[in-house]
Amino acid sequence: MPDFEQYLGEAKVFVDRALMESLPPAGSSNVADAMRYSIAAGGKRLRPILCLAGAQVLGAEQEAVIEVACALEMVHTYSLIHDDLPAMDDSDLRRGKASCHRVFGEAIAILAGDALLTMAFEKVAAYGREEQQAEQAIRIAFELASAAGVGGMIGGQELDLVAEGKNLTLPEVEEIAALKNGALFSAALRCGALAAGAGESELQVLSSFARLTGKAFQIVDDLLDSKATDAELGKPVEADQKKAKATLPALLGVEAAQARVDDLYRQATAELQKLEIDTSLLQLLAQRLIYRNN
Amino acid sequence: MPDFEQYLGEAKVFVDRALMESLPPAGSSNVADAMRYSIAAGGKRLRPILCLAGAQVLGAEQEAVIEVACALEMVHTYSLIHDDLPAMDDSDLRRGKASCHRVFGEAIAILAGDALLTMAFEKVAAYGREEQQAEQAIRIAFELASAAGVGGMIGGQELDLVAEGKNLTLPEVEEIAALKNGALFSAALRCGALAAGAGESELQVLSSFARLTGKAFQIVDDLLDSKATDAELGKPVEADQKKAKATLPALLGVEAAQARVDDLYRQATAELQKLEIDTSLLQLLAQRLIYRNN
Repeated sequence: MPDFEQYLGEAKVFVDRALMESLPPAGSSNVADAMRYSIAAGGKRLRPILCLAGAQVLGAEQEAVIEVACALEMVHTYSLIHDDLPAMDDSDLRRGKASCHRVFGEAIAILAGDALLTMAFEKVAAYGREEQQAEQAIRIAFELASAAGVGGMIGGQELDLVAEGKNLTLPEVEEIAALKNGALFSAALRCGALAAGAGESELQVLSSFARLTGKAFQIVDDLLDSKATDAELGKPVEADQKKAKATLPALLGVEAAQARVDDLYRQATAELQKLEIDTSLLQLLAQRLIYRNN
Repeated sequence: MPDFEQYLGEAKVFVDRALMESLPPAGSSNVADAMRYSIAAGGKRLRPILCLAGAQVLGAEQEAVIEVACALEMVHTYSLIHDDLPAMDDSDLRRGKASCHRVFGEAIAILAGDALLTMAFEKVAAYGREEQQAEQAIRIAFELASAAGVGGMIGGQELDLVAEGKNLTLPEVEEIAALKNGALFSAALRCGALAAGAGESELQVLSSFARLTGKAFQIVDDLLDSKATDAELGKPVEADQKKAKATLPALLGVEAAQARVDDLYRQATAELQKLEIDTSLLQLLAQRLIYRNN
């Protein structure tokens, strides 16, 4: 796929448009404006794109799963809004702009996060109202709730809060990353695949691929974080280090961390070989997510 | 139904047990403990009981809809936890105990609310995984998300925050109550009815009944609030008045408010007559909810 960058750009535009159309109209309430602000603030739309790609490699159309893709970005954005709150990570900057509570105040930011989480499940339900899609939608809702809940993202955020200022071991750092980001990352691909009617064996391979890719993605994030400027990252540089949060590069050193990334990428692409379908889209995606500069 | 009090007591025990069994184990994390604390802190379980009753009058078993009933209480409890936060209503007392953030801190309280909201949809999805229940579960998820979102509970909470310290008109007071409490109240009954396979005409009558009952319930809440002591109510007395939040009794006076309650009760029970099924359970429930002392 020589025009992979074009594919990514088009997928992002497609997702962006669907997201903004899903949200309550601008000016209808402060919560609506806060939801729109945080969604519009950008981001790479990785989770929706993973969802669309998961559906595509199994033969479904992007259009058929766009509501599920939007749901994933809504869950991701809600988690960023709540994580940035003063009581949590107390972050003033997100995606290169003032964080939601800095613009709209804490109360509206809490409600905007709540509303995005709620709307995510409304989108999955809307998907499930289409003919013959109810059973898939139920599996998707279960997948999404599991990945976002105490056994996934929320559990990871709690461990992250507890870890502040402590010396963590490598397994502890990896567990936090797996829960905090890996679970939703993996769910994104699985939800797309579920929408396309994937079987259990396909789901297992895709989960494994997503977990490995997500792990590598997180290490790359930490590597970039240790090099970049505020403007490049869109969030305060070394915010994590300032709060003495352990990262894998900090524990292993940059070179060993990069070697780990390369190894994870090899493992991830090896997983894809187990499937008897064309997975080149996923391989390109993994490559792009892992070998990037920002 | 002479043993209606017994029915209510048994339904509450049934719901309480199912709720506690649904939550992550005690001690598994701070978020898990905070979820368990706020759910166990009590409350009348009105929404789950409305859900069970809605299913029962249409011929379904309580056991078949218990997961949906639990989902409604989880959504309600999440909203109480977030409403009590310092950035919102800043309330130290809830259901007669210290509010969640007073015990566990703000960060854990935010996450516990998020986790309960997430788990509510997980419960609906679990219900939908049973044979032949996927389509009903999708309708229930949609109903729940709509009632909880910006067009319902969250919208009501925002209006409530904005209203603080302002002189509201009667229609404004009623709109806030309809969104903040009425929407989920009505959804509770509708979700139970949906689980029992209710048709559109039945749903409309039940919605109307629930809206009227919910409106009366809210006025009674405000009436009791103006009379009771802290210990009786389980929350700081006149907390709403202190913050200069307008209530219907404050605007109309106690007598006119009570007349309004009586009128709403008559209208609600008249709605039930339109159905060709035995709705005595719902009539007793409305009576109990409206003519109460605490």
